[in-house]
Amino acid sequence: MKLASTVDARLLAVLDDRSVDVTDALGIAGPGAGGPLLAFLERGGSLDALHALDLDALPSQPLDTGRLAAPIARPGKVVGAPVNYLDHKAEMGEQRTIADFGVFLKATSSVIGPNEQIRLPYLDLRTDHEGELGVVIGRTASRVPAERALEHVFGYAPVLDITVRSGEDRSTRKSFDTFTPLGPWVTTADDVPDPGALELRCWVDDELRQHASTSDLIYDVAELIAYTSHVMTLHPGDVIATGTPAGVGPIAAGQRVAVEIERLGRLVVGVTDEGAIAYADRPGHR
Amino acid sequence: MKLASTVDARLLAVLDDRSVDVTDALGIAGPGAGGPLLAFLERGGSLDALHALDLDALPSQPLDTGRLAAPIARPGKVVGAPVNYLDHKAEMGEQRTIADFGVFLKATSSVIGPNEQIRLPYLDLRTDHEGELGVVIGRTASRVPAERALEHVFGYAPVLDITVRSGEDRSTRKSFDTFTPLGPWVTTADDVPDPGALELRCWVDDELRQHASTSDLIYDVAELIAYTSHVMTLHPGDVIATGTPAGVGPIAAGQRVAVEIERLGRLVVGVTDEGAIAYADRPGHR
Repeated sequence: MKLASTVDARLLAVLDDRSVDVTDALGIAGPGAGGPLLAFLERGGSLDALHALDLDALPSQPLDTGRLAAPIARPGKVVGAPVNYLDHKAEMGEQRTIADFGVFLKATSSVIGPNEQIRLPYLDLRTDHEGELGVVIGRTASRVPAERALEHVFGYAPVLDITVRSGEDRSTRKSFDTFTPLGPWVTTADDVPDPGALELRCWVDDELRQHASTSDLIYDVAELIAYTSHVMTLHPGDVIATGTPAGVGPIAAGQRVAVEIERLGRLVVGVTDEGAIAYADRPGHR
Repeated sequence: MKLASTVDARLLAVLDDRSVDVTDALGIAGPGAGGPLLAFLERGGSLDALHALDLDALPSQPLDTGRLAAPIARPGKVVGAPVNYLDHKAEMGEQRTIADFGVFLKATSSVIGPNEQIRLPYLDLRTDHEGELGVVIGRTASRVPAERALEHVFGYAPVLDITVRSGEDRSTRKSFDTFTPLGPWVTTADDVPDPGALELRCWVDDELRQHASTSDLIYDVAELIAYTSHVMTLHPGDVIATGTPAGVGPIAAGQRVAVEIERLGRLVVGVTDEGAIAYADRPGHR
């Protein structure tokens, strides 16, 4: 099933070009800042509850993609995977991989949805797109072995890990507001037979910049969850961006960035430099 | 006012050795995993609402410190400040400061309260205490200038930024479960005339390891909020650990770590190696 959140906090099951509002059928009342899907997951919502829905008995409407928001607007955590493809390791001139770096964290306030815009923070520093497979946790995971890790996955979605190229800690360079576009929806794990065999493509305007398969991940989804849950307990709704393949490059105001993953859909966001400043003008600059 | 959360999700006003349960008087119903203080802040709770309480009209009880939990159990974000004291820069042999590194993020799942134990993850890697001044955000802060930054502070609390000394990203080394002890309570900003003039001490058992004043911060509280809010929007309940002074050192199972800050109280937690493994046995080790 594909689950989308709307700007007015409704949860939609997406059926090709139509949608069914399942908010009330799932008993989702008063979702917080995280949106209706996070509220569903935090209250113990499961794939079983979704499968018990009789979608045919609920009214459907044409899918209005213009009203979609991030499927999860404020996850409990956004975990990132540095250098998790060998070809990206090579293009960055990096000697180390995720096995050396472990994982990093992005600010949960950086998530945006389709129809929104990436805001470039600096006029004179390069900001890059990094198209990635995103994993949404469904069941609390603490020190789970790789063999059981996929049982903790609720679903998958395209994600962009937008990154400033500068000398700060990854958490700073990747946490600016709008730096984690997620969507257009979450595809539940039962519709993704093998998260390690998904074609990923990322465009800037009409230029194909990244084209890879998740089969080339250094830590595949199961091993990444095993490693991450060894460090930190993962909770329902937490999001893991699994790392980016080769082809990262700069984005500029006025461009459109798209990331499309087989079975999971296509996420498109804009880019603006409204509010951008010179790097030397940042607060705290010495 | 000093505000503490209990293990059964009650919010207490702490008055020396007595406490007043203010949960119902503040209308805090159904707090989530973050606890009652976060629920209060997320729903717009302010210092004004606290000042409107008539504490004398509410029943008080002896303060049961054994029932205290982290004042905020699951903040929206936990922000850290790397190398924010010159003496810590010197002891780490570090050439750079926060002005170069920016801020990092810790997993929100790493927060524990008084009476809990730090769990060492590795049997054969050094894990250090870092005693710090913690700042709790009260009002949403986005790109606020330093001159207005303190208006966005709800209060302050002692915090420990527990850290594994290894080669991984800071977010990994500082995010293991139990690595962010916070408490014993939050002292509201109106009771802290100058957050830049607080004496901080940190002990391991009876040994005084750290002794500093927040007047030696490189980015003081206002500048740190200005910088951080330039990167990421800060929301009510978000916690900033302002960085540690010199004197960091290893902790071992069976020890007790205490951090005490003038006006803010004394936080004490234990240390255990239950569940610790050899570094080479971690998932994903190559």
